[in-house]
Amino acid sequence: MKYRVGICQFQPQLMVPDLNRLRLNRFLSGLQADLIVLPELTVSGYVFQNREEVEKVAEDARQGPTAILFRQLAKLNNTSYVLGFVESQSDRIYNSAMLVNPDGQIHIYRKTHLFLEEKNWFTPGDSGLQVFPAKDGVKIGLMICFDWIFPEAARTLALKGAQIIAHPANLVLPWCQKAMLIRSLENRVFTLTANRIGHERNGDRELSFTGMSQITGIQGEIIKRLGNRGEKVFITEIDPEEALDKKVTPRNDILQDRRPELYL
Amino acid sequence: MKYRVGICQFQPQLMVPDLNRLRLNRFLSGLQADLIVLPELTVSGYVFQNREEVEKVAEDARQGPTAILFRQLAKLNNTSYVLGFVESQSDRIYNSAMLVNPDGQIHIYRKTHLFLEEKNWFTPGDSGLQVFPAKDGVKIGLMICFDWIFPEAARTLALKGAQIIAHPANLVLPWCQKAMLIRSLENRVFTLTANRIGHERNGDRELSFTGMSQITGIQGEIIKRLGNRGEKVFITEIDPEEALDKKVTPRNDILQDRRPELYL
Repeated sequence: MKYRVGICQFQPQLMVPDLNRLRLNRFLSGLQADLIVLPELTVSGYVFQNREEVEKVAEDARQGPTAILFRQLAKLNNTSYVLGFVESQSDRIYNSAMLVNPDGQIHIYRKTHLFLEEKNWFTPGDSGLQVFPAKDGVKIGLMICFDWIFPEAARTLALKGAQIIAHPANLVLPWCQKAMLIRSLENRVFTLTANRIGHERNGDRELSFTGMSQITGIQGEIIKRLGNRGEKVFITEIDPEEALDKKVTPRNDILQDRRPELYL
Repeated sequence: MKYRVGICQFQPQLMVPDLNRLRLNRFLSGLQADLIVLPELTVSGYVFQNREEVEKVAEDARQGPTAILFRQLAKLNNTSYVLGFVESQSDRIYNSAMLVNPDGQIHIYRKTHLFLEEKNWFTPGDSGLQVFPAKDGVKIGLMICFDWIFPEAARTLALKGAQIIAHPANLVLPWCQKAMLIRSLENRVFTLTANRIGHERNGDRELSFTGMSQITGIQGEIIKRLGNRGEKVFITEIDPEEALDKKVTPRNDILQDRRPELYL
């Protein structure tokens, strides 16, 4: 099966979601693929100072302006998208990702493992680690940024049938890109890590993001790794059916060989 | 706390355990450390043709000649050792590792995840993934070779309090050494992978082993990696108490941040 997948390395401007949506609309215009993954908090930026700022950029998962834009883009470009956004639901705010399909369906994942100050304003995700169908029924597992350090996250997605792990990120630590190679290898899944770039300052908080968005194959190989600067979309072709074969040797299926009764 | 740990890269001769024990005795003579890890199946070799061959080199975990030798060495050199051996117990044969302490205590781990033809002669380990005290009470988690590909193995050991994962190996695939960096990082533990070297042929079976035994630190860094040939013991000093600190950021404890209710 031929499946065109992409990673979009993007630099949002903090607290101006309207502008970021305009830029994303232009940036993605005319790019056809089966699946494109964008960074965590793609339309809002990351370095918030307080809960009030987060509330300002929070939006409804299905009726908000980001959902409306990406539903249009998905239909127009016949492409599934995964991107991070600030989700509001009643009085709670989540660091979420949406999978938007060409048929208009939207699936939501809420970040399970919050990083540092995120604990001040986001509610820990209660969606669970979920696998959803993207275009042509390919099974996509969703995780967000810091979820990478917990092997249970990617493992749970693989056990639920993920062929591709879509991984929006705003990475500041130096390790994730290497770790995702092992997430691929130990689960025999593809991973698409879309990381943002740039430096963001807000009052006394500032962070630099590491870029190096990447696509990995089921043997833990780098299919493509971008640099650490420059906004860019990279699209390539993979065969997601490879991820259905869990045999690392003729007699070792890495999921069937598990012995959960011996694990904590 | 200063703790001298070592990895012993060794090439056994297949099916001649007496000779291998003699050579190990000479090889380890006068080397004092707190903990030295040796390869999987250190005294027997690996490439068996059939169950009868395996039975010939199988021995009792506590009364066999390997246990007797290493109990003597442990006392003499005031060193804990971890090494792989073929364990017989009633009519079952296991691919096991023993931790032998200077006080004469021996702890046993039986390989949980069997690789390829090992499934023909070994019983899958029923000891569970265990953590035992080595010299000075440092907590050692034991795993053997192919256990590396299952993140649950190292995770279970970390959750049980392992500060150091002792990992005897007979590696033939190209990935383990990189994966162990991530095992260290995601669990904030030290790992000592002692791999064998050399080429082994037996009838129509033959395998080459990759060497590159290594010691990794709690941030996933390589403290030392040996080459892919040459028998060698490398000893260095680490502080196992570092592994008690599970904070990857001031607000992210990688074990406490887990959300087991959401994992499969």
